[in-house]
Amino acid sequence: MWAATIVTAILGEATVRLTLLSGGVGGAKLARGLAAVNGVELTVIVNVGDDDRIYGLSVSPDIDTVIYTMAGREGPQGWGLAEDPFVAMKALDALPIDASFRIGDGDLATNLFRTDRLLAGWSLTWVTTALASAFGVAATILPATDDPLRTEVRIPEAGWLSFQEYFVGRSHADEVIDIRFRGAGFCRPAPGVMEALANCDAIIIGPSNPILSIWPILAVPGVADTIASHQSVVGISPLIGGTALKGPAHKVLQSLGVGSNTAGIISSYDGLLTDLLIDQSDVDDVVGGGQPRIHLTDTRMPDLEGSVKLAQTVVNLASSARRT
Amino acid sequence: MWAATIVTAILGEATVRLTLLSGGVGGAKLARGLAAVNGVELTVIVNVGDDDRIYGLSVSPDIDTVIYTMAGREGPQGWGLAEDPFVAMKALDALPIDASFRIGDGDLATNLFRTDRLLAGWSLTWVTTALASAFGVAATILPATDDPLRTEVRIPEAGWLSFQEYFVGRSHADEVIDIRFRGAGFCRPAPGVMEALANCDAIIIGPSNPILSIWPILAVPGVADTIASHQSVVGISPLIGGTALKGPAHKVLQSLGVGSNTAGIISSYDGLLTDLLIDQSDVDDVVGGGQPRIHLTDTRMPDLEGSVKLAQTVVNLASSARRT
Repeated sequence: MWAATIVTAILGEATVRLTLLSGGVGGAKLARGLAAVNGVELTVIVNVGDDDRIYGLSVSPDIDTVIYTMAGREGPQGWGLAEDPFVAMKALDALPIDASFRIGDGDLATNLFRTDRLLAGWSLTWVTTALASAFGVAATILPATDDPLRTEVRIPEAGWLSFQEYFVGRSHADEVIDIRFRGAGFCRPAPGVMEALANCDAIIIGPSNPILSIWPILAVPGVADTIASHQSVVGISPLIGGTALKGPAHKVLQSLGVGSNTAGIISSYDGLLTDLLIDQSDVDDVVGGGQPRIHLTDTRMPDLEGSVKLAQTVVNLASSARRT
Repeated sequence: MWAATIVTAILGEATVRLTLLSGGVGGAKLARGLAAVNGVELTVIVNVGDDDRIYGLSVSPDIDTVIYTMAGREGPQGWGLAEDPFVAMKALDALPIDASFRIGDGDLATNLFRTDRLLAGWSLTWVTTALASAFGVAATILPATDDPLRTEVRIPEAGWLSFQEYFVGRSHADEVIDIRFRGAGFCRPAPGVMEALANCDAIIIGPSNPILSIWPILAVPGVADTIASHQSVVGISPLIGGTALKGPAHKVLQSLGVGSNTAGIISSYDGLLTDLLIDQSDVDDVVGGGQPRIHLTDTRMPDLEGSVKLAQTVVNLASSARRT
């Protein structure tokens, strides 16, 4: 039973406040694990660079993946809802429109709700809080910003693309040769984001794509500086044997010249990390001394038990992490 | 077999060009019947006063009802699609939003398509043509206008309401004491509307709610004048025994002081009609002489056979209708 693996948090009965930076699937799985560890008070700051307007709907793919996964209701591919029919999408296939962005029927309700409420003047933070509550998620889920911030990537064949054009429209098959975060210069951290970063016991950077999922969070003015001044910042590498389990992280790390290995992950976080947890299969990447300290474990999260096990390791590590 | 009831149009093998003004269910049923009459070249000008933004989607309820009904795919209540699940709406019920406006999952695709294309710069006419084509509807379906025109009604309890607030939100239970068509002063007939009215052999005003469904079409500048100068304008009363089969037509005719009877229908069209077809149950309403000439028939359309039968009567009547 996975419940048996739940541990008392590092401070015994006391609360440990963790703030997790997350993209979609990997970060969401870790979020679910962390929320299941006794004594953890969790805030998740979620990437909104993938947000877009699809079929007129305001979609926030990473926010929904985090909420659905934390509720145990995520779809089989890690996005969308479990056991969700696709009647609307099949009907859309009969109309003259690019219907490559698939949204299940129940998942449509989430996006209809968000679109309706944003048009009514709610902030993305309000919408996200309402959704998390409706899905029974007790952790605080915050968008990195309520202002528009959009990841765009440049590919040799077509120039600059919106994230969803690249990721869904072209199945992230292209080589990414540049990246930018439109709006980053004009956005503010969402309410609660700076406080969650400044006042937590440790900041956790989830096993998400550093460039496509975490950089857009770090691009929000003030966020990277606040993380850099925190005493305890634990990253989890998304690589297993130098490759991402899901998505194009290793390809993008390579094509942008960062390197698809532990050194590349460290470099991509540019001095922010005090500790980095990597998969034991990447043991050859370990270099001695300095910061971040590198720790080995099994970082795969094939099921909830795996998520809780990794979360427990992260919580233990966070207690000893200290910036030197 | 209903097919056996299809008749050769009044001009034998020649084509008769009819332009039908339609709201939702009643007009849509007649449209389907007219399209099945041999030799009829049909244009349907559809009310857009009920259009609204619901859950962020651009909905056009009457246009969709006309297309779905003409395609033989209308839902059991006359709106939406047949055999359409409501997974998205059930999911929406769990979120903090007024979900009284129900849209089936397949019907959502129609509305996602329209919303997406309008945002991309298509006109409502383009969207409507694409939808009609995708649903295999050969007749020309035109919105009355591509510009915003919104029906609003005043009720004693709450003042002015949008049409959908009144119709769906409050189940058209309130007494309507005034009506207005917001935007009517600033809108233009959609491309093709004036030509379809001026160049047809007869204009048919469908058995729709005169005030809530036809007045918003007549409110488009130029439309009423063009109809008034046409030699052949045949109306079909939506009343059967003084009552609307569906919807609040009789209540609104009464509360606005027009009268829920044949005289009220005539009065509501203010000199436009050359001929009026009423249900045989309203025989006592017939008054002699003058225009419009009044004709009796069975105006109910319980099934496709009924629609084609009424359509045939309308086509025959249209051939002899002449403004005096």
